[in-house]
Amino acid sequence: MNKYIVEFIGTFFLVLTVICTVNSDFGGAFQPIAIGSILMVMIFAGGHISGGHFNPAVTLGVWMRGKCAASDVPGYVIAQFVGGALAAVIGGNVLGKVPAAAATNMSIMPAMVAEILGTFALVWVILNVATTKSNSGNSFYGLAIGFTVTACAYALGGFGSGGCFNPAVALGTLMNGLNTGANIGPIIAANLIGGALAALAFKALYHSQGADD
Amino acid sequence: MNKYIVEFIGTFFLVLTVICTVNSDFGGAFQPIAIGSILMVMIFAGGHISGGHFNPAVTLGVWMRGKCAASDVPGYVIAQFVGGALAAVIGGNVLGKVPAAAATNMSIMPAMVAEILGTFALVWVILNVATTKSNSGNSFYGLAIGFTVTACAYALGGFGSGGCFNPAVALGTLMNGLNTGANIGPIIAANLIGGALAALAFKALYHSQGADD
Amino acid sequence: MNKYIVEFIGTFFLVLTVICTVNSDFGGAFQPIAIGSILMVMIFAGGHISGGHFNPAVTLGVWMRGKCAASDVPGYVIAQFVGGALAAVIGGNVLGKVPAAAATNMSIMPAMVAEILGTFALVWVILNVATTKSNSGNSFYGLAIGFTVTACAYALGGFGSGGCFNPAVALGTLMNGLNTGANIGPIIAANLIGGALAALAFKALYHSQGADD
Amino acid sequence: MNKYIVEFIGTFFLVLTVICTVNSDFGGAFQPIAIGSILMVMIFAGGHISGGHFNPAVTLGVWMRGKCAASDVPGYVIAQFVGGALAAVIGGNVLGKVPAAAATNMSIMPAMVAEILGTFALVWVILNVATTKSNSGNSFYGLAIGFTVTACAYALGGFGSGGCFNPAVALGTLMNGLNTGANIGPIIAANLIGGALAALAFKALYHSQGADD
Repeated sequence: MNKYIVEFIGTFFLVLTVICTVNSDFGGAFQPIAIGSILMVMIFAGGHISGGHFNPAVTLGVWMRGKCAASDVPGYVIAQFVGGALAAVIGGNVLGKVPAAAATNMSIMPAMVAEILGTFALVWVILNVATTKSNSGNSFYGLAIGFTVTACAYALGGFGSGGCFNPAVALGTLMNGLNTGANIGPIIAANLIGGALAALAFKALYHSQGADD
Repeated sequence: MNKYIVEFIGTFFLVLTVICTVNSDFGGAFQPIAIGSILMVMIFAGGHISGGHFNPAVTLGVWMRGKCAASDVPGYVIAQFVGGALAAVIGGNVLGKVPAAAATNMSIMPAMVAEILGTFALVWVILNVATTKSNSGNSFYGLAIGFTVTACAYALGGFGSGGCFNPAVALGTLMNGLNTGANIGPIIAANLIGGALAALAFKALYHSQGADD
Repeated sequence: MNKYIVEFIGTFFLVLTVICTVNSDFGGAFQPIAIGSILMVMIFAGGHISGGHFNPAVTLGVWMRGKCAASDVPGYVIAQFVGGALAAVIGGNVLGKVPAAAATNMSIMPAMVAEILGTFALVWVILNVATTKSNSGNSFYGLAIGFTVTACAYALGGFGSGGCFNPAVALGTLMNGLNTGANIGPIIAANLIGGALAALAFKALYHSQGADD
Repeated sequence: MNKYIVEFIGTFFLVLTVICTVNSDFGGAFQPIAIGSILMVMIFAGGHISGGHFNPAVTLGVWMRGKCAASDVPGYVIAQFVGGALAAVIGGNVLGKVPAAAATNMSIMPAMVAEILGTFALVWVILNVATTKSNSGNSFYGLAIGFTVTACAYALGGFGSGGCFNPAVALGTLMNGLNTGANIGPIIAANLIGGALAALAFKALYHSQGADD
């Protein structure tokens, strides 16, 4: 149960930061730094209890890699979506953050490519820095994971989807009018595809290596 | 006594950075990066002596968690407020940093929600990265704590209070006209509420777990 | 083979970030932070398998220093150029990122000086933080290497070449019209010169010291 | 001798970054991030050989604290000034970076206060993170030291001196017209005062504690 609470808290603050840095007084240009930072700190804080996924696509990848029990997956994903949804309500309805303009339907192809690539990078980094023996005990895992999102948001955030790389973030953006209903399905599908591809690539590499598992 | 001096020095530079990056030549948009950075470095520098609180709401949370002696609390809090006040004098009267416009009374509800959430995140991260056995000996604690403030300042700094998350910072902003007298009471109350809630959440989680204490 | 795949993946995301942050919605001013971040995270992720070069000039320097087998050099360099070229295709043709204006021929002298200096700094940092006994087991190598590129891109990116410090990046910028054909030869030559000079300086220093090898 | 070469290289790149990010294509607002980053990476790279001072005020403070042999001080300081001066020549004369406007004489009092405070913070952080037993073996020392300069440049860079906190940087800015001859003496004096004060504060604290020396 503690694991689910930690996943709830971390995803809540991640999505809250996404929602509240739109139309920020500081300008949206810093949004990827704020989002990468909150993900980093929540992973450093919660990683020792839940692993610090805060993202259903990450839970999928970590489960495929064999480092998350199947029995934990539903609780993780529910906690992540509930945390994201509550953040959207707090950010939108309580704090009153609303987007400057109505979201428009994205062009499916570039947006899905961008979401697949970004989620692949995220899960690729996570599986390497946080689930391998050769990297055990390092002090950089949160920095590496958080700033993967920073870099990918700058590089891949401008193709219509906003750069979610995370179904719980996608849900939060939908609830606050930052994404349309038509966008959400393809984004979530792309996130899961990207996460699964990263897990497959990781496993192929490590099984062929026969070590560091 | 050394602990109090370290708390004084760290809080002094934290509040000085807050005051001096308002109306900065580099633009206020970088303020959260500057503030998170100075908090990070002062924690890395002073953490081995005082724990690196620099914030009465943090001292409250760490005391509730049982990692700060009750007899140390008054000295810590006094050192923090004196450091913050001196920074406000140096920044405002000696260096002459003054706000571009008079502060206005904030809308209480969103501002208190923002301050509670930001201080909760800060103390949540601190208790996890700096007071648990499973994270002992890490090299990321200052980065995690400092950049919690960076992320929260970007996300939660725009709701009227300026994003203090720290009563000593609130005092400094009041002394330099960045906050009104009417704002300060609710901000400090919200900071203490957020810190206490984080300590309660942390303790509930760890007592139920029965480990990592 | 796994090493080459890791080099391919890392260089792909590095060059993709370069291509996609040009004309970014967030403004090119954040490009060095995005590029340094993606390099950092790919090194943290892939370093334990391939060493995380992602750059033919780095492979040259590490080979000269005796920490990359000569038999690995061709595979590394091919993987890096293929990864960079694929990223250019994905970024330019699939995602449709194109430069705002046609590239112009650079003034050779300042551009080559800038590229030599930047690549020297990069390889100097790499050889010290990632190949010495006294720094073995540290958790900062990716941060140090990635943010060398961030700093050098800000300092040395404005002299005509765009701040490549990496032949695979130079190839990607050529393929997407961010550099002219006339620019590429001098840039790649400068990168290799800078990397080789750093390796020579490093070896002179360490051989004279007779330790830490 | 190796130590002096490392000090030369590190100071060269530090001052080169200062010079070349003035009138940067990316805008001066990122200058503190670039400067803090290059200082961080040069410390991570060179710290294991020379300690990574790159700053006569730091050498003064580390010597006062008893962690730099008196016989090394002249060589360190000469290497630092030579490195800084060469960077000014490369940046100004070879690369052609010139300031947008002629420097003006600063108001002495606020500028000296700002330089003293910034150098105090820098040396305070260095002595704590890099010369104490309780922090030995950490992986954060370069990050802590580099981003002290980032934070202080944002907070204290706007009071006439430009935020040097380092006599070798002051020399470089003078050589390139970023500071006037009348400014340099007070800046360097303030840097040495700030560094000495930090060493005195550190020693008073530790001698009274009788440990962690």
